[in-house]
Amino acid sequence: MSETMKAVRLYADWDPKPDFRLGAKDIDKKQTYLGSKVWRNPIMKIEDVPVPKPGPGQVLVEVRACGICGSDVHMAQADDQGYIWYPGLTGFPCTLGHEMSGVVVEGGPGALDKNTNKPFKGGEWVCVEEMIWCGSCQPCADGWPNHCERLDEIGFNVDGAFTRYVVLPARVLWSLDPLRETYGDQDAFKLGSMVEPTSVAYNAVIERGGGVRPGDNVVILGGGPVGLAACAVLKRNGASNVIISEPEESRAEIARKLGADHVINPQKEGMADRVLEITRGMGASLYLEATGLPTVVYPEIERCIWEGRTLNSTVVVVARADAKIPVTGEVLQVRRARIVGSQGHSGHGTFPRVIASMAAGMNMLPMMTKTITLEEVPKHIEMLRADRHEAKITCLMD
Amino acid sequence: MSETMKAVRLYADWDPKPDFRLGAKDIDKKQTYLGSKVWRNPIMKIEDVPVPKPGPGQVLVEVRACGICGSDVHMAQADDQGYIWYPGLTGFPCTLGHEMSGVVVEGGPGALDKNTNKPFKGGEWVCVEEMIWCGSCQPCADGWPNHCERLDEIGFNVDGAFTRYVVLPARVLWSLDPLRETYGDQDAFKLGSMVEPTSVAYNAVIERGGGVRPGDNVVILGGGPVGLAACAVLKRNGASNVIISEPEESRAEIARKLGADHVINPQKEGMADRVLEITRGMGASLYLEATGLPTVVYPEIERCIWEGRTLNSTVVVVARADAKIPVTGEVLQVRRARIVGSQGHSGHGTFPRVIASMAAGMNMLPMMTKTITLEEVPKHIEMLRADRHEAKITCLMD
Amino acid sequence: MSETMKAVRLYADWDPKPDFRLGAKDIDKKQTYLGSKVWRNPIMKIEDVPVPKPGPGQVLVEVRACGICGSDVHMAQADDQGYIWYPGLTGFPCTLGHEMSGVVVEGGPGALDKNTNKPFKGGEWVCVEEMIWCGSCQPCADGWPNHCERLDEIGFNVDGAFTRYVVLPARVLWSLDPLRETYGDQDAFKLGSMVEPTSVAYNAVIERGGGVRPGDNVVILGGGPVGLAACAVLKRNGASNVIISEPEESRAEIARKLGADHVINPQKEGMADRVLEITRGMGASLYLEATGLPTVVYPEIERCIWEGRTLNSTVVVVARADAKIPVTGEVLQVRRARIVGSQGHSGHGTFPRVIASMAAGMNMLPMMTKTITLEEVPKHIEMLRADRHEAKITCLMD
Amino acid sequence: MSETMKAVRLYADWDPKPDFRLGAKDIDKKQTYLGSKVWRNPIMKIEDVPVPKPGPGQVLVEVRACGICGSDVHMAQADDQGYIWYPGLTGFPCTLGHEMSGVVVEGGPGALDKNTNKPFKGGEWVCVEEMIWCGSCQPCADGWPNHCERLDEIGFNVDGAFTRYVVLPARVLWSLDPLRETYGDQDAFKLGSMVEPTSVAYNAVIERGGGVRPGDNVVILGGGPVGLAACAVLKRNGASNVIISEPEESRAEIARKLGADHVINPQKEGMADRVLEITRGMGASLYLEATGLPTVVYPEIERCIWEGRTLNSTVVVVARADAKIPVTGEVLQVRRARIVGSQGHSGHGTFPRVIASMAAGMNMLPMMTKTITLEEVPKHIEMLRADRHEAKITCLMD
Repeated sequence: MSETMKAVRLYADWDPKPDFRLGAKDIDKKQTYLGSKVWRNPIMKIEDVPVPKPGPGQVLVEVRACGICGSDVHMAQADDQGYIWYPGLTGFPCTLGHEMSGVVVEGGPGALDKNTNKPFKGGEWVCVEEMIWCGSCQPCADGWPNHCERLDEIGFNVDGAFTRYVVLPARVLWSLDPLRETYGDQDAFKLGSMVEPTSVAYNAVIERGGGVRPGDNVVILGGGPVGLAACAVLKRNGASNVIISEPEESRAEIARKLGADHVINPQKEGMADRVLEITRGMGASLYLEATGLPTVVYPEIERCIWEGRTLNSTVVVVARADAKIPVTGEVLQVRRARIVGSQGHSGHGTFPRVIASMAAGMNMLPMMTKTITLEEVPKHIEMLRADRHEAKITCLMD
Repeated sequence: MSETMKAVRLYADWDPKPDFRLGAKDIDKKQTYLGSKVWRNPIMKIEDVPVPKPGPGQVLVEVRACGICGSDVHMAQADDQGYIWYPGLTGFPCTLGHEMSGVVVEGGPGALDKNTNKPFKGGEWVCVEEMIWCGSCQPCADGWPNHCERLDEIGFNVDGAFTRYVVLPARVLWSLDPLRETYGDQDAFKLGSMVEPTSVAYNAVIERGGGVRPGDNVVILGGGPVGLAACAVLKRNGASNVIISEPEESRAEIARKLGADHVINPQKEGMADRVLEITRGMGASLYLEATGLPTVVYPEIERCIWEGRTLNSTVVVVARADAKIPVTGEVLQVRRARIVGSQGHSGHGTFPRVIASMAAGMNMLPMMTKTITLEEVPKHIEMLRADRHEAKITCLMD
Repeated sequence: MSETMKAVRLYADWDPKPDFRLGAKDIDKKQTYLGSKVWRNPIMKIEDVPVPKPGPGQVLVEVRACGICGSDVHMAQADDQGYIWYPGLTGFPCTLGHEMSGVVVEGGPGALDKNTNKPFKGGEWVCVEEMIWCGSCQPCADGWPNHCERLDEIGFNVDGAFTRYVVLPARVLWSLDPLRETYGDQDAFKLGSMVEPTSVAYNAVIERGGGVRPGDNVVILGGGPVGLAACAVLKRNGASNVIISEPEESRAEIARKLGADHVINPQKEGMADRVLEITRGMGASLYLEATGLPTVVYPEIERCIWEGRTLNSTVVVVARADAKIPVTGEVLQVRRARIVGSQGHSGHGTFPRVIASMAAGMNMLPMMTKTITLEEVPKHIEMLRADRHEAKITCLMD
Repeated sequence: MSETMKAVRLYADWDPKPDFRLGAKDIDKKQTYLGSKVWRNPIMKIEDVPVPKPGPGQVLVEVRACGICGSDVHMAQADDQGYIWYPGLTGFPCTLGHEMSGVVVEGGPGALDKNTNKPFKGGEWVCVEEMIWCGSCQPCADGWPNHCERLDEIGFNVDGAFTRYVVLPARVLWSLDPLRETYGDQDAFKLGSMVEPTSVAYNAVIERGGGVRPGDNVVILGGGPVGLAACAVLKRNGASNVIISEPEESRAEIARKLGADHVINPQKEGMADRVLEITRGMGASLYLEATGLPTVVYPEIERCIWEGRTLNSTVVVVARADAKIPVTGEVLQVRRARIVGSQGHSGHGTFPRVIASMAAGMNMLPMMTKTITLEEVPKHIEMLRADRHEAKITCLMD
């Protein structure tokens, strides 16, 4: 193996806004939990970096596929004052990329394969959680790794996967063997790189939303990757009517391929009216807010709940938004409804279940609308600032 | 038994506002689900009415105690235009009163005692659900009687208990025998009349809120009867710190007697600051919104959740309010929190468990701050428009 | 409508065994909860009976399809001493048949359509719960209608559906409109008659078993109607591997059509070995015991749990059996597993969800292996004593 | 600090029975998951051992109190053939003792305090989980640390706490600060050493058993430390009637002090009869099997469930036993009941909630019937082979 490799890296200047103060987990000039308050003048470079070595409990993985995520776009995008859009945990310079699949090269000391509880042999096909939960803080000890108090994030504050090799803790790797059997080698890596975003949707609708009982109706607001993946997951969970609200026709088409029974174009028809019509006045058991526009969509959700006869609806809020959600308490009372927030994809058996679901036929390939090379990554990260046509753009190595 | 009896009855004029339309369950000039849009010029009278006879499945009960509820106050209170305050199901004229206990006189044809599945013998001590769920509509069939689609309500659209005798369906009666053993006859009727409001609190925090695990902290906003009862229920459920926010000192004192460990006076100290201090920065697992002032209290609740380290908090909204709750989605996401609405007190084994809890020592008598006669009921219903000093005023018959 | 109709009726002699005593809900010479201890010399007759009239809250339904259930067989089958095999609630003479669909003729006084909360118009297509839960006893009030303390059962102690007309309480009817839209009129009645047995399976695996998360494995023991229906329900709920153990090839074939991914012939291969092989050593999340042979199958289930790595497995026991289940506590401890019992099909939104699932594509028609006329019912009830080839035999009227 | 310290250590010979084979996690001549099949001729010694040093992520703790557990007794006790009684994970020689509290001396590299997410300062008062779950295997990643596939156990296969100093991973320590405030320094260490056994009971009845709703009844079979602690936990959770079955009067007395409302002596009265009498024929919502004698007690539990009217009962099996549990499926079906197994005490927020409950008044001191010095530990471990009088014997260091 050569000693250096090309990597897509993001640089930015540590230039905190006046109101910023170093938080408990921030490190001066290096890392912050409030990216958009600190980092300025982001710039992506493809440069040569040394191939890393796995330390204790770590594994060296050769990357085979890595998708571009909206957060990659927002880290590399500056606002009017030059600050990055992305508001969360970041430490630059950093190699971007976290929706990855690859092959294990070698494990460091004490790195065990979760499949066998033995050291890695090399050659294992794997995908990867983006969140490096610590496994030791109180939330991790209590079983809530998505809320780890000592979190690292691959491609955000530790080097990620838009490159040839990446070093990762053994505990965040998951075997892709089931996908190889169903789809063959060619597609297994592609699908493997979509396990992470699909797990974000799965965590939202199954772990946090409680899933559905077969025969229930669901409504998904927004056809970004999480909303699209939620169509597939909820259809598989037994939803009778999977209804998605999404104005962009290309995404509507993907939604239909992934399992949506009905697509509502909210620019052309009233969302609540159509939901009540499709469901014979019942409304839905689960609503996924995946638009980031709560002031626009929540009143429509609320009308579905209030006018529909379905009790016990759950609204899952997965998209981040600055605006408040305008909630009418009486709707929650009269319809026995609830609102839950969702973040992350780790824990709760989510990754292995997503892989098993894909292996059993939940084919997410329609979501991958374009594949590119490593050299093409920066320009596509820039392109996605405006583009609403592509769903998932994936870098294939080799 | 004499053939007539005195009853506290409410009269009002059917005078719908211009925007009102008869709903599916409304009956012209007689009954509506939107009381404050229809009824005008409410007036209470004590008058002689015939003693009723129990029909099929019904029971004649002699009333022994009946508490005044806030909804009694709001039904009899007019706004500037003369419309009643109470916004819900109402049919006038109607005998008021629903927080009752009493003794069975006789059962009508087919009326069975839930305790024995046999006809009533007469002499059974009972308390009563206020909601006459039908047991046959889809919500009732599915197990959600608090959301019955054919609901009647005792003391709202069917004659209630501020009188000597009342006729009720057998299925909404619950035996007070366990209270007689623990408290003796004298207090059993008093406590029996508080089973209904305590069940509203129990349904909110246990059935809807999911209760607590022993060692959790809870925060209750508002020391009305529901908030006070919630103190007792959650302390009994194992909460380590029961914290209530209530400015009125007389109610704070009752809260302490019922199990509150800490009382915050929100007019003198910051609610969120105190909660975080009391809980060593952890915040609480359950928040009960029982003030009806969501714009005031929800931001404080949100700060407790955001700054506290407790994950999986539940906010239970039990008080009705016109104002929207200003919800920050990110707080629900980062702290894995949820908001649920709660209404009613029926089903889910709530009434018998409240009775069993009282029998085992959950003494609610401190909540009953005053007892009165039937003749005194109207003036006390009027007095409670302004009074914040009394907690529960109860009419004792005999 | 003519004034009499042909009906398949079961007669037997009230001849209690020496150890039998009238229970609380038994009626001397008429009805018992312990059929096999009381009824002797069963005989089926087709005879003319009067067309019934609906009383208060009741509906007259014209039967269109009615399936034969195993309990029909056991009621009409005598053991060596002449006592009927069926051990449960029975009152003879009684018209048999409870897995029915039909058309509403007219409603009695106060009978409301759950769909509209208004009186029936006549012409509604419906299917029917077999259990006439009372809606008023404590289990019903608490939300557990499958455990009603005042239960009647259609075709067991009240007249059933192997005839032209049947009278039923409005609250146990469910609309078949969704099936008409998907399948057309011809198949809607057939499918409608299978809602009840499918709901028994749904109640077992979804309501009692908790369902699965997409990606989980399940194992079903026994390919009778409940086991077969469970294949369809669990596949729809997202199970990756639906594995059924069933020796009879004709039933195996139906299982495959309904969604089973793997069929194990327990007479030819080790059940536990195959399950562990199919699941790569993981075992399953849910096991449905639908054989009635716990001493045979439970040790195999236990081996799957013990040797498989899956935690939190649920064993649902739906088949009745006299033999004890030999449970090793340590298996439940080490694998965090549990055992639950399941009975009934009512409540919990099960019927409407089964109908919605069928309407959305869960086609149960492969289970209906034969259709017959009313005259052919008795001989097929007798034939099924020995036959293991047919799955569901259904009587179609006209 | 002196360089050596006295320790109570257990020696035994590695002498596997003929049918024993090294398992996946066994290490030849050193460690096995099947202690009673391998280790022979156990002998306890008090000897001088070096004071250990904390490695990466580890903490050196000075022991202040450590209770004797039944497993200590069984590790040091030989059967007729000389093999130890204890059947589980063991690696000898090993310093015994795991129910401990103490004070942090210093942390090794990277060892963070869960309270602060910062390095230990020294001087922190802590108690300790006995199970060193790895935080990295699939069960740990999924949130089930009690089922860790790479488990170590303090005082079983890694050196324990019957000594002056012990080295532990930081992630299994929990702060005792709340106990100091409530009880003062003297009792905080005593109570701290009882957090682990109380957590075993808490995990059984709250995490696995689902706890109770206030007003429910519970029955605990067996007054060993887990059964006794369960009395306190369930009373605190709101059980109306806490009923324990225990023949030994000294333990009955402790049970009463900890919250039991009724003690049944199963040698003098029928358990099921008394439970049905106490509960007015209802039976209980939760049964804890803590005797290890399922063939004796399960039929009694089953009678309570069958004859009682309570639905949805849970039987929690926490005691280990070789004998099968003779389960009647129909009882689980007719009463909607379930059986769950429970092991461990880690995860799910159990330790901090037990500490918070103790701090809020759940005083477990009545369980500590005797305190001893380190030198007295071996003879008391031997004494407990026969003694049923003492509940918890605790070694106090000072």
